[in-house]
Formats: sequence, structure tokens, C-alpha cells
Amino acid sequence: MPDNGQKLKLPRLKRIKFVPRQQRKTNTTTKRDPEELKCSCDSSFKTYDLRERQDRDQYEQKDGLSIGGSPSDASESSQDNNNNLSSSVDASNEHETAMSNLQEKETDINQLPEQTRPQMQTIAELSCPVRALKYRNGIHTLGGGLGERQRNRQGICNKHMPWFGIDVGGSLVKVVFFDPKDTTDEELVTLKRIRRYLKSSKAYGATGKRDSHLEMPNCLINKRQGSLHFIRFATSEMPEFLAMAHSKRFAETVNTICATGGGACKFEQDLRNNLGIRLHKTDELDSIIYGIHYIDKYNSDRECYFLEDPLDDQKCVKVPYNFSKPYPYLVVNIGSGVSILAVYSSTSYSRISGSSIGGGTFLGLCCLLTQCGTFDEAIRMANEGSSTKVDKLVKDIYGGDYPKFNLSGDTVASNFGHMNLEERRKNVKREDLARALLEMVTINIGSIARMCAVNEGIDRVVFIGNFLRVNQLSMKLLSYAVNYWSKGAIKALFLEHEGYFGAVGCFVESTQDCNKQ
Amino acid sequence: MPDNGQKLKLPRLKRIKFVPRQQRKTNTTTKRDPEELKCSCDSSFKTYDLRERQDRDQYEQKDGLSIGGSPSDASESSQDNNNNLSSSVDASNEHETAMSNLQEKETDINQLPEQTRPQMQTIAELSCPVRALKYRNGIHTLGGGLGERQRNRQGICNKHMPWFGIDVGGSLVKVVFFDPKDTTDEELVTLKRIRRYLKSSKAYGATGKRDSHLEMPNCLINKRQGSLHFIRFATSEMPEFLAMAHSKRFAETVNTICATGGGACKFEQDLRNNLGIRLHKTDELDSIIYGIHYIDKYNSDRECYFLEDPLDDQKCVKVPYNFSKPYPYLVVNIGSGVSILAVYSSTSYSRISGSSIGGGTFLGLCCLLTQCGTFDEAIRMANEGSSTKVDKLVKDIYGGDYPKFNLSGDTVASNFGHMNLEERRKNVKREDLARALLEMVTINIGSIARMCAVNEGIDRVVFIGNFLRVNQLSMKLLSYAVNYWSKGAIKALFLEHEGYFGAVGCFVESTQDCNKQ
Repeated sequence: MPDNGQKLKLPRLKRIKFVPRQQRKTNTTTKRDPEELKCSCDSSFKTYDLRERQDRDQYEQKDGLSIGGSPSDASESSQDNNNNLSSSVDASNEHETAMSNLQEKETDINQLPEQTRPQMQTIAELSCPVRALKYRNGIHTLGGGLGERQRNRQGICNKHMPWFGIDVGGSLVKVVFFDPKDTTDEELVTLKRIRRYLKSSKAYGATGKRDSHLEMPNCLINKRQGSLHFIRFATSEMPEFLAMAHSKRFAETVNTICATGGGACKFEQDLRNNLGIRLHKTDELDSIIYGIHYIDKYNSDRECYFLEDPLDDQKCVKVPYNFSKPYPYLVVNIGSGVSILAVYSSTSYSRISGSSIGGGTFLGLCCLLTQCGTFDEAIRMANEGSSTKVDKLVKDIYGGDYPKFNLSGDTVASNFGHMNLEERRKNVKREDLARALLEMVTINIGSIARMCAVNEGIDRVVFIGNFLRVNQLSMKLLSYAVNYWSKGAIKALFLEHEGYFGAVGCFVESTQDCNKQ
Repeated sequence: MPDNGQKLKLPRLKRIKFVPRQQRKTNTTTKRDPEELKCSCDSSFKTYDLRERQDRDQYEQKDGLSIGGSPSDASESSQDNNNNLSSSVDASNEHETAMSNLQEKETDINQLPEQTRPQMQTIAELSCPVRALKYRNGIHTLGGGLGERQRNRQGICNKHMPWFGIDVGGSLVKVVFFDPKDTTDEELVTLKRIRRYLKSSKAYGATGKRDSHLEMPNCLINKRQGSLHFIRFATSEMPEFLAMAHSKRFAETVNTICATGGGACKFEQDLRNNLGIRLHKTDELDSIIYGIHYIDKYNSDRECYFLEDPLDDQKCVKVPYNFSKPYPYLVVNIGSGVSILAVYSSTSYSRISGSSIGGGTFLGLCCLLTQCGTFDEAIRMANEGSSTKVDKLVKDIYGGDYPKFNLSGDTVASNFGHMNLEERRKNVKREDLARALLEMVTINIGSIARMCAVNEGIDRVVFIGNFLRVNQLSMKLLSYAVNYWSKGAIKALFLEHEGYFGAVGCFVESTQDCNKQ
């Protein structure tokens, strides 16, 4: 039986309204009590445009990436993205003000002071040898310390800044392209070719997609101003990508690409041989943390959010969450598999757990069971199905609740527990199987994440990764389940740029090293 | 990615040798260090017959169910069971000595003093509101305290002792039948009918099976001597069972049956209406603990064991484990779903976690993917398959290891992670899918169990439940994985009577109440 999880009867998928906060509240303590968590966001405000942001420099504090409240005259605009968000207010007049502000004051992550590590649990507290196990991988310092940093700088710092950061994962390659505003004539030749190719379409090859709704204009990276563009394609198409990049001569000016993810190791030789490109590799998990902190800083007004009333189809809204004092928090990165990181400060974290039951499991099993072809199709099917004929519930075994252990009759006792009987298999649709799979994978991840949060004494869990793309169902399930299991003490948070933090972090981290040289 | 789990390349299934300890060592401390754990069993001895035991009364200690070392003249016999155990020594001469000893000195659980609860983590230590969550279900006292006990006694204590204890689970009904040696004439009429039916065969109806190798002769329960027999059938056949019991007039003398499991609630009305039988219900998890303690006491020489060299086909042996000082320990009960209990003493425990990905998930998904018909068939297929073409490994993503986080290239990054590609799906057999499913479910359970053990500071994890029946593959995986992840600090233990503890515990608990009346 599951971990006290009530069976989550979700309504049919519906657009989630986005309701921004009126004003950020700065948290003064690192550890907050559940009651404080509940009121840390005000959900009675207007809609933001993802491609716009307001100047936040004046609200910055001195401790690393922590950013204070947004101004009361925060700018909003009509919404223009394809991420199932609905506009609640059109504030286009404020758009121009925000844009002009941005051009005057840019945020450069390199100018931020490094934060010291907060108080950690001491070894003395871990006197039990079994308990001490959870710290066996140790605390990691971002960038791997000075020695690793110095090695990293070699090879990245040419006279031209790199344009690309790529994160080659188990299923998807995530690419960020930095398009600078001010360029040398030499750069311009290559850049024009890249721009023409990228901006002419939102789709490339069989699986390539540009997530234009996530575009981040007016970034300042390594003292250069420009825009970040977000592109993804299947890792299985990596050879086609290399051929395309070769034919379009993307590598003529810049011969180094910032890369992370497992594929940065696996495809390194191919990239060097086929394109003459050297990879500036960074650690995958380091990069994710860098990326989260950079993007949340850039996009602090709306990057981080939670779902209010996740199971109520009419009331469910996305509410921005004040992530300006984030430490400690948990990151649950759901890609093909799952990694769970406890982040203690802007520079230190630990990989505390993981699971091999992740997005790749959902898609792989869904393809086997339903003959679907893509992740998007699998998610669409899940939204149209029901798991009640597939799973065995507590009430199927008990005839009702099991109150002694707070198990409602609607709790799933056994995923796919009815499917051993042929007559039951005849009565389920492909959509039901897809739905049952999605719920099984999601609830298992939520349950493990909750255990990690409880054991680390952390009350904020940030779920990221491309498993959550176009997958509001899992976000709703995670929101409801984490809240229910923890009686409101632990909060499930989400970030708009779901799966791109590794690519962004790797790019930012690499150019940061370059700047210091 | 999984929780530091090395990819477990298991050899083909092979019989596991059973190598008993020469002599039990009595542990004097409740908490043991990993080094002590490693040497607590001596694996250089002979073979025991499951149906025999030696007199242990003289070695009993005064603290509850704790039993000391077995005598140096321990009796063994040739092995006669169908549980894939191989005899290493035939000690049939010693058989008779053991049997005569048994008849002189019986173990009656009712005569044991109750143990007091050991020191618990105090609430003061749980100052973090998030950490305190793990204790929200509280510590349970077996039998539910005096009030519940008194209610329980009503309805069970007729002039005749009941014969049956049943545990009606999500997939299987587990039945223990107590066959007394000394009977009244009135009892004998019904008993003869039951005996004739049960002992004439090892198989009943479509799914009914008697596990004759688990039979426990010469038990003393409620001051009566007799044998315990173990029978199981599919829960879906409950109506057929009721009809059979009715037609064979099993209920003529005894109109009360001890029952536990969800079905004890669900089928209560049917039993009363169809057979005129009242159920004496006990809590499912209470009964499991009672059952473990009773059976381990009865069968202490070989009930509890661990696997040595689980991945080495030639060396792998079952080694008896001294469970005489068991507290605290973790019980991972894998049935259709999974319940995880922390047992602090003979009378107190807590349900600390669970998972809905259990045996029902394995069988349900296996039936969908391979069109197999039974659990035994699914296990046979898993033994003949390989998961390497199905799962995506760390080396499939990284091209090798990910050393920073101790992830070997052979670690599974994503279960079924290759199955989104049609060309990969074409190259896998049904057996491969069954194997990948079994490994996915098993490793997920092992990982959650390990987290629970670490968080509770417990170094012994006892895996039980019918998922482990005829499933050495999962036992090997759990043994290896728990040992690997914990660097030997946590031990995976198993019990011979895998799924019957609920039924036995319910029976023993009920008659215990009766005796006190």
C-alpha cells in the first residue's frame, strides 16, 4: 500500500490560470514553519508575460543569489506563450516600461558575491552508523573547487564567447543559444546563419522544437547582452544534429561549446571529429543548480510557482512563489530517471537519492502497452484515461477504508493490481493504461521525494525536468500528494523552464570561469 | 538515476544451498555495529529439515520472544521440501531425538512474559516540523491495547477452539489449519472431513495449493498440541472456497474463524450468510508481527536466513540468521502492494512507509506485456530473460561510469528507458520484459526499504510476503542491493514462511485472547 497517499481522483485536464503575486515577501529565516509557507504567496494579482521581466537589481540583497521582493509597481503584460497559461489581465502598457528598464539595468550573475554554506548537520549527530550512510556521497561544492575550476577555464576562453550550452540527457538534448546584441563583424557572419536557421521555425528535423515561450531576452552573461533561446531534440537524433551543424557551418567562429549531461562524455569524440568542436564540459548536477539560480534570478517574478487547489478544475491556479531565500531546498530532477538533490546554499548541495523509475519508464512502458509514438501523445492519452479499472484500491481489498493507518478506501494499494485477470484486461482502454502508468510513476517519485524532504528536514521540494513538460497532470498529482502526505508542511514547487536548467547552468558556469580568467 | 545501485547482473537461477549455523550466538545489545553483523552467523554446518525443530525452551531468555543459542547437539535431518533447498548433510538419526524432545517440551507463546518497549526517539529530538511527520501515524501496541483485546475476545472463545486462521489479501488468501492431536469425539467428526480433504492432495480447485514443505508439526497453541498446515488460493476464488467449505460442512463444530487482511472485512458478510461463520477479526499488521515472532520462535533454527554471495551462482548459500534479539528491525511485507513496518519490541511497531508498486504491479504489468497467466509463469519467464536490452543504463547515457556520484556504467538510469524506440522493441523477448519488470519492482522496493532503514537507524530489514515465493531472483537482488548501497551496514533477511505470518499471527493472537479469558 502506498505511503498514506489518498487516491487522487483528478478532473479532466484543463488550463491552469496563472495568478501572480502582488508583491514579494522577503523571508528572513532559512527554515520556515508550515503556517508561514501557506501565506508566503499572495494569489490575487495579474498576469505576467514570460518573455518580460522587471528590473530587480535594486532589490538584490548581498547574500549570493537571494533576491528581495519585486517592486510594488511591477510590470505585467498580456501573455503570449503556448504553455497552457491563460491571461487574466492584459497589461500591455506596462510592457514598454519594463523593457526600457531592462535595457538600462542588466543582471550579471558573475557580479554576485559567493554565499557561505549554512550550518550543516554535524557528524556527531549522526552517531548511528546506519544513519550516517545518507551522507556518504558528501556535500559537493559547485564547480568542484578551485582546482577543477582552473582546469575548466582551459579551452573555453577564446577571444569569442561561445554561443551554445547543451545538455545531452538520456532521452533529450536541451540546447540554449545565446544571441548577443553587440557583435564583431567576424562573429556576425556565423551568427546570421544560426539566427536565420533558428528563428525561421519552431521545429527542426523530426523531433527538434524551439520553446519560444521560454525565450529570455536581455540577459547579461559574461558582460555581454543578448537573448537566450531554448531548443530541444531527441538524443537519438544527435548524429543528425551534428550533420546539420556541420553543413550550416555553425562552428566556424566559435570552436567551443559548453556541454553537460551524460552525452557530453558520450558524444565528445563525435563532435570533435565531425565539427572540430571541443566541448567545455561541466558536471550535470552542478549545472542544474547554477541554472536554477540564474534563471530564477532573471525571471524571479514568475519562474517559480506552486499550484493552488490542484484537484479543483475550476479553482486550480498557478501562483508565483517567492524563491528569493530558497535554502535549503530539494531538487527533484525528473528526466529519463530521477535525481534528488538537497541544496544547502548557492554553492553547496548533495545528491541524496534517486530512482530509475522516471520519465523514460513512463514513456517506455506506455509505448509497449499502447503503441504510442511520442511523449506528447502518451501524455494526451493519459489525460483521456482513468486508472480506476487498472489499479487495485484499498477498498477493493478491504471493502472500504483502513482507518488505523489513515488509508482511505480510494488509496491505490497496488498499481496495475487488477491486470492479472483477463476479464479485467478486456475492459481497459489504452488511455486507461497510459493514465495508470503516469500516476504510478508520478506518485512513486512524489513518495520518495517526500521521504527525502522529511529526512533532510526540508520543506520545499522543487520538481523539474522534461517529464513535467506538457504534463500538468503530474504537477497536480505531485502538488496534491506532497501537501496531503505532509499535512501542508512540505510544498511542491515548479519552475517554468522545466528541463533547461542544466543547459543554462552549464553555459553560465562556463562563461563565469572565462570572465574570471 | 537510481540510488547508487550498481546494475545487478544476476546469473541464471540456480538452487541455493542451505548452510545452517553451527551454533547460535546470543546478542546482548539491541543495536549492533556493522562489523558485528557480519560475523553473527557461522555458515559452516549441516542441513535442517523444515518440518522438524529442536527443543529450545531451555535456551529461552526472560525478555519476551528472545531465544538464545541452539544447543550444540542440535538435531538435523534430511531435507524434504520443495523450496529449492539442497541437502548438504543427511542427519536422519538425529531426527527421532528431536521429535521426542519436541513431544516433551512444547513452546507456548502464551506463556511468554511481555516485553517492555525499548527507548524511543523522543519528540524533543524531532523539533523540525517536517521531520516529525514520520511519526504521525504513531507507535502501535500489538492487539490495540486492553479495550480492543477485550472486544476481540468476544466471539472467539467457544468451547471448541477454532481450526482456521485466514489472511485474505489483495491477491491471495492464506490459510493456516490447526490440526490438534487430542480431540473430543464431537470435534473428530468435522476434523476427519477437513483432514481427508486437505491431506488427500496438495492442490485444490484452480489455484489452491498446500505448501506441505512449510508444515509445522507439534505446535502448542492455547494449551493444545497439534500441527499447522499452510494453504493458499487466489482471492478471486473466495466464492468457490465458501461454496466448498459449505458443501463439506467444515463449519459444523466450529462456527468462528480467525481472520485478518482486507478481505476479512470485505467477505465477512458472505461468510456469515453462507456458512453461518462469524469472523474473529484481527488487525493485518498486528497479526504479521505476532506471526513472525511465533514462527521464528517455533522454527528458530532455520526460519530466518540471509543469502551469502547472492550474485555468485556457485557460492550463493542460504545462511540461518540468529534472530533471537531482533529489535529493532524493519519488516517489508511485499504482497500486492508493500507495507514497511519498524518493529521496536515484541509489542510495539509503527507503519513507517509503503508503496503501491508491489507484487500486484509486477504480475499485472507482466500479464499485460507478456500475456502470461500466473505468478509462477511470470517468475519463470523473468528467470529466462535479461533486462539489458530493455533498461537504459548509465553507460548508455554517459558512455561509461559517472564516478562523482558513485554511479557505475552498469547502473540502471531508467527502467524501460529503451522501449520508446520501435527498433529496440522489436529486439526484446517476452522473457526480457518479465525480467526488467521484476528488477524494476524489486529494486524500487529495496531502495525505499533502505531509505527507511537509514532514517530509522535500523540495520536489519526482514523481507516477507508472497512476492518472494519461488522468487529467488528478487531475494538475490534485494540481498545484493541492500548490502551494496549500505556498504554492508544493513542486512537483508528473509523468513521461510514468506507470506503466512498474517494468517498464523491472527490465529495465535486470537487463541491467546481466548486463553486469557
